[in-house]
Amino acid sequence: MNYPTRVKIVEVSPRDGLQNEKQVIDVSDKLQLINDLQLAGVKHIEVAGFVSPKWVPQLDDAKAVCAGLVKEEGVHHSALTPNLKGLDAAIEAGIEEVAVFTAASETFNQKNINCSIAESFERFAPVMEKAHAHNIKVRGYVSCVLGCPYEGAIDPKVVAEVTHKLHQMGCFEVSLGDTIGTGTPLNAQKMLGLCADLVPMDQLALHFHDTYGQALANIQACLELGASVVDASVAGIGGCPYAKGATGNVSTENVVYMLNGMGIETGIDLAQLVKAGQRISEVLGRQPNSQVALAIG
Amino acid sequence: MNYPTRVKIVEVSPRDGLQNEKQVIDVSDKLQLINDLQLAGVKHIEVAGFVSPKWVPQLDDAKAVCAGLVKEEGVHHSALTPNLKGLDAAIEAGIEEVAVFTAASETFNQKNINCSIAESFERFAPVMEKAHAHNIKVRGYVSCVLGCPYEGAIDPKVVAEVTHKLHQMGCFEVSLGDTIGTGTPLNAQKMLGLCADLVPMDQLALHFHDTYGQALANIQACLELGASVVDASVAGIGGCPYAKGATGNVSTENVVYMLNGMGIETGIDLAQLVKAGQRISEVLGRQPNSQVALAIG
Repeated sequence: MNYPTRVKIVEVSPRDGLQNEKQVIDVSDKLQLINDLQLAGVKHIEVAGFVSPKWVPQLDDAKAVCAGLVKEEGVHHSALTPNLKGLDAAIEAGIEEVAVFTAASETFNQKNINCSIAESFERFAPVMEKAHAHNIKVRGYVSCVLGCPYEGAIDPKVVAEVTHKLHQMGCFEVSLGDTIGTGTPLNAQKMLGLCADLVPMDQLALHFHDTYGQALANIQACLELGASVVDASVAGIGGCPYAKGATGNVSTENVVYMLNGMGIETGIDLAQLVKAGQRISEVLGRQPNSQVALAIG
Repeated sequence: MNYPTRVKIVEVSPRDGLQNEKQVIDVSDKLQLINDLQLAGVKHIEVAGFVSPKWVPQLDDAKAVCAGLVKEEGVHHSALTPNLKGLDAAIEAGIEEVAVFTAASETFNQKNINCSIAESFERFAPVMEKAHAHNIKVRGYVSCVLGCPYEGAIDPKVVAEVTHKLHQMGCFEVSLGDTIGTGTPLNAQKMLGLCADLVPMDQLALHFHDTYGQALANIQACLELGASVVDASVAGIGGCPYAKGATGNVSTENVVYMLNGMGIETGIDLAQLVKAGQRISEVLGRQPNSQVALAIG
């Protein structure tokens, strides 16, 4: 066992989470969420996506959100920037960390961003170059690491290659997304192990969805291998667009609860986190999608 | 890693599950559930509890349920029998496997069954004797193995002692219950490991609740140690009476999905299982409490 002593939680509710909720919520509610998260000790928060509002109306307020952020020592706000236009807007908004994304599935990339895996790298090479010229760190996202809604099973060696490429291009961290949540513990370990052969383990993040209830078991299995960065979304915000009625993001509350029990530090105050989740859930008009929130709250 | 090649699922929805649901459902619906489970390949089903209807009205129909069971080669129907009266009724009803229960917490036992741990053993010594005289197998349940609603943290050595005692008294299997679901993976492994020092691993069952979303991660961690018997409840039937609004039993669908992904056999047809869960959920007037059921169904 190679458990980490500390895990970095990357909170994705304001961007990835809310992007996958039907409602478009007010800027003030988003800023409240981000502030609540910071109060709970969350240090890494994906706050916005500079993407076309035509496709993703939920993120149309990226500029306004960034203008309202409370900057804090040690707190990192990041934003999705799929192209140069998005990066320029992020730079103007004062963002110091951005993210680009691709997939381990050719079909998924074609359907999602209209290009092949290779073409996706070509597309964000200039984004990475310009980001680095501005001292902005770039995170890479890989979708479909444990399954694709179109292709089904995904070759973990392909995941490792894509991950490696992102790292070689300069991504300081690569987030491995089980986009449809079909992954299970042994496959998750195998995939992570292959990635870690090529990229330092502490630069790999787990972005596991809970669509089939497997997220925590998959995270646990990967923590054993030394994974130490976990993406999560408070109150489990963000459904899965590929499975009707299904859940998506794993809830930060559930993850932190598990890590607390395992004696692994996160720096997060669970009670405050639960409150943050309750508040945004009220805005969304539903209960938190988190057993911990329901049990504690 | 010492993963089993096969896991025995013990389905507890008709007894443990429905006992912890507010509604009292019809005998016909219970029998439909049990039949649906058998059709899905479930071979071990806890069908009834011969307990006082004054305390547990949901189980008042134990005799009627047993009379309506479809007997099948290889299918085991079991019933809870906390005392001789219950055992006599079970014998009369043709039940061939019964269960007794205690806890690893003195306070929990006092509050739940009005006696100490030691007294609980004295109480079911005659039950075990008579059961064995009738060639009836007896399973032991231990509550609070990873936490108690009254005492908080529980000493895993006490869990191991209680488990050992049940085994010595003649229980063919001991089910370790994380009654309030507060357990996390490393504590679960530690507790199981201590039990397995005294009782053969294949005679230990995991009865982990999902109140804090930890069940599958805890099960996964214990499978690594060779655990091969898992209690679960289709559609996650059976809330937690100790935490308001909280979930309880882990859903069989989620467990089977994980085991399938890990290449561990169960003999269960997941699609049929999901149907069984959907049907009983409709009777209960709500959605299945299982991400797998929601994603697949």
